[in-house]
Amino acid sequence: MASTQALYEELLDSWRKAVLLGSVQNQLGWDEQTYLPPGGAAHRADQMSLLAGIVHQQLTTPRLGELISALETADKPPGSNGLLDANLREARRRYDRLTKLPTRLVEELTRVTSLAQQNWVEARKKSNFEMFRPWLEKIVALKREEAAALGGGDGVGNGAPYDALLDDYEPGAKSTDVAKIFASLRAALVPLVRAIAGATKRPDVSILTRYYPKAAQAEFAKAAAAAIGFSFQDGRLDESPHPFCSGMGPGDCRLTTRYDEHHFPGAFFGVLHEAGHGLYEQGLDPKAFGTPVGEAASLGIHESQSRMWENFVGRSQAFWKHFYSQAQTRFSEALGSVPREAFYAAVNDVHPSFIRVEADEVTYNLHIMIRFELEQQLIEGQLKPADVPAAWNEQYTQSLGITPAKDAEGCLQDIHWSGGMLGYFPTYALGNMYAAQLFQTARKAVGDLDAQFAKGDFVPLRTWLKDNVHQLGRQFPPGKLVERITGQPLSHEPLVAHLKAKFEPLYGL
Amino acid sequence: MASTQALYEELLDSWRKAVLLGSVQNQLGWDEQTYLPPGGAAHRADQMSLLAGIVHQQLTTPRLGELISALETADKPPGSNGLLDANLREARRRYDRLTKLPTRLVEELTRVTSLAQQNWVEARKKSNFEMFRPWLEKIVALKREEAAALGGGDGVGNGAPYDALLDDYEPGAKSTDVAKIFASLRAALVPLVRAIAGATKRPDVSILTRYYPKAAQAEFAKAAAAAIGFSFQDGRLDESPHPFCSGMGPGDCRLTTRYDEHHFPGAFFGVLHEAGHGLYEQGLDPKAFGTPVGEAASLGIHESQSRMWENFVGRSQAFWKHFYSQAQTRFSEALGSVPREAFYAAVNDVHPSFIRVEADEVTYNLHIMIRFELEQQLIEGQLKPADVPAAWNEQYTQSLGITPAKDAEGCLQDIHWSGGMLGYFPTYALGNMYAAQLFQTARKAVGDLDAQFAKGDFVPLRTWLKDNVHQLGRQFPPGKLVERITGQPLSHEPLVAHLKAKFEPLYGL
Repeated sequence: MASTQALYEELLDSWRKAVLLGSVQNQLGWDEQTYLPPGGAAHRADQMSLLAGIVHQQLTTPRLGELISALETADKPPGSNGLLDANLREARRRYDRLTKLPTRLVEELTRVTSLAQQNWVEARKKSNFEMFRPWLEKIVALKREEAAALGGGDGVGNGAPYDALLDDYEPGAKSTDVAKIFASLRAALVPLVRAIAGATKRPDVSILTRYYPKAAQAEFAKAAAAAIGFSFQDGRLDESPHPFCSGMGPGDCRLTTRYDEHHFPGAFFGVLHEAGHGLYEQGLDPKAFGTPVGEAASLGIHESQSRMWENFVGRSQAFWKHFYSQAQTRFSEALGSVPREAFYAAVNDVHPSFIRVEADEVTYNLHIMIRFELEQQLIEGQLKPADVPAAWNEQYTQSLGITPAKDAEGCLQDIHWSGGMLGYFPTYALGNMYAAQLFQTARKAVGDLDAQFAKGDFVPLRTWLKDNVHQLGRQFPPGKLVERITGQPLSHEPLVAHLKAKFEPLYGL
Repeated sequence: MASTQALYEELLDSWRKAVLLGSVQNQLGWDEQTYLPPGGAAHRADQMSLLAGIVHQQLTTPRLGELISALETADKPPGSNGLLDANLREARRRYDRLTKLPTRLVEELTRVTSLAQQNWVEARKKSNFEMFRPWLEKIVALKREEAAALGGGDGVGNGAPYDALLDDYEPGAKSTDVAKIFASLRAALVPLVRAIAGATKRPDVSILTRYYPKAAQAEFAKAAAAAIGFSFQDGRLDESPHPFCSGMGPGDCRLTTRYDEHHFPGAFFGVLHEAGHGLYEQGLDPKAFGTPVGEAASLGIHESQSRMWENFVGRSQAFWKHFYSQAQTRFSEALGSVPREAFYAAVNDVHPSFIRVEADEVTYNLHIMIRFELEQQLIEGQLKPADVPAAWNEQYTQSLGITPAKDAEGCLQDIHWSGGMLGYFPTYALGNMYAAQLFQTARKAVGDLDAQFAKGDFVPLRTWLKDNVHQLGRQFPPGKLVERITGQPLSHEPLVAHLKAKFEPLYGL
């Protein structure tokens, strides 16, 4: 009989091959968003679909199931340090999940979403929901089929069908728990948003829509990303309709952004955000690449990193103490005569707005809650895809008091649904809460972060994150990871405390 | 028993999947040359090697062999039009070839050449052959192993080992035949080169090294590529250390170039060249994609298209009658006061030079002959990789009367060997001869090409090429294809006639 060690090696080897092939899918996905010529969309969909099928088959071969079962009951080899158990836990989770999905469905979803994303780009450009509607209908039908195949929430018919999708992005999360913590967060946010709306002290945001030449924006954003520690030896920055970060594997992590020459924050904070994701990817243990625990713990934890660097670092007073003179030099016409305090206030302007990725820290989570509601209704079948624009606009009117005038600034703004990513959005708000809780702990652990940022020193925070979060990969489920680091289960309170401490003085409340 | 039609469909389906996966390899290869961050080289090599192994396995499954054998002896279905036979011929050729190569060797070659190409970029930049030497040694050893596994020239031990490699690029070509036609060509070229060297009439080439801003070069080159018919809806143009064209599949064909702001011809004619390849790729029958005959007939035929658009069209008087005023507008400082005749003479300057891709039409083929000699010696084991720089420089001294001062302008200039492409170079000179012979026929077939070019009308030539060459794909072996179109077997004479007719008046001979 094969030794436990031999079985384990065989499991890891098979897994590595599948993940390596999966990383080729990522590469094609990146190319689709950045450089694919329009005429190549159908061929790209064929490539993606073929690869998805092969990867799915590799991760659902009966031999893999045998290996996992054998290892679960085997004596652990001496000196085994918990890594084997963590790899087994993740392998079991993925294997059980994937074996419930027919390869046909996986291929079909891949093909349809690959084509739909190209279509979404056009539909968004033309602000034409009708163009995109048939694709959304196909995708929602396929995702409902996926949720059903996965057996609903806990895999045996308990819990909402939506939970089966959510679990793919945030292992172990349940929509009822998410709804509960979102309700607590909303209860604290709404009065704060209202108070800020009533404040008489308001920043001059017009300085942010002056002329910021694209080339200078790109250089400045790259310099800032490099300063916080993103390695351009092992990564790049390109343009795409929707900003993202894609970790291809060791030594290759790609960020994208989009530039508006009359809106400074979009690209700059966008790049800091993606670079935050990138630091996580570049901080993973390269030796663990391809093993079940070799990737990020969850999308919520991933988002905690991007939001931390974007907001807790990038929109702090201390950050701009270091960077503002550079900004003034690079954009002397726009900022030459603007005092730092005025700039700081402007990039922290809080007001209801249409575009999620450009929303301020306070209202951002309301954007997420809207999407979370609508997604659940789509998957439960209570909302028809054709009714999404009306439902979207109604939610914005209710929650934020503003009504999108066109779908490009409404339900067509995000790439997620066109990519089949239903169940993804809540991880953004979870990420904000994780970020606040982790940052609170980091403050205690690594000394005076503000003093460090003001000197342009981001090494202590990055090192702490690498040691405590990045290099562990998926060894712990997200909730457990945060509890392990902070000593507390996830709560909305650190985020609320952060927002009050920051925005009350800014708005003279 | 399955019908012939069913077996044929099964063969084509399997083939399509393998080619589709192979197109993913192309995509990764393109990315490696254009956007891959340096740190990602090892991971990319792992991806390429994994894919190469899967594709190789797919194209060597015993079932494929059974299908081919069954179809070879089956009654052809009524109405079968020769396409089935052509597909079978190509499938047999590839299958027999690939089954001789162990998957291990294919994976190893892919991994080594992927890493070696990254290394070559650095070595070339630093003009440091010693950096590249260990990689060249590995590659030559692996290619010798490949040639041996393929059983030498004709697969059963007859002919030179080199022929087995040559056949991959130019199906059916033999090095003895190539050597013979090269000798005839050389015999005609050497006196012409000598006569031109002795001519007193010389163009002023200094106009070509004035300042040509990169952005304007890129725009002009793209405009010219679009004018000859390259579709940017179905393709793109990017930068890479070594220019190339890669057809990914229907609707996606990618060109690359490199810019030197003080050398106009490099990028401009380089793009026309790659766009010539691109027209071939875009002219293939999309319905045939993935079938054995769905690709270009050979690299020699491919090169005939690139060289025809680069030289027979792009460096013609007629072409510049149409384009010169645009050039003067775009580069008014450099060309504003230069008469068209002087410009035409300058871009057709003939003189011995170091860099093949920038060589003139007359001396170009001598660059190829040098590489052809050295490659054969490397594969036969008569030349050690360590001795390549000395042998290279000696050949240049003998053939062209000039000696490279550094390896970056000598044996490190081309990407081919780092990519494992030994046996590839002769297809360039074959391509020049094919081009001349095809162009001669096109002249007779589609009327006054010069008058058309002078009006900026490239449709008649492109349509003729599409009908006679592009859309046929690999239905005929290259030699047969040319004979079918021109009524003559390949000869060096049309090329020599073209060169004399063009350059004797230019140099007042």
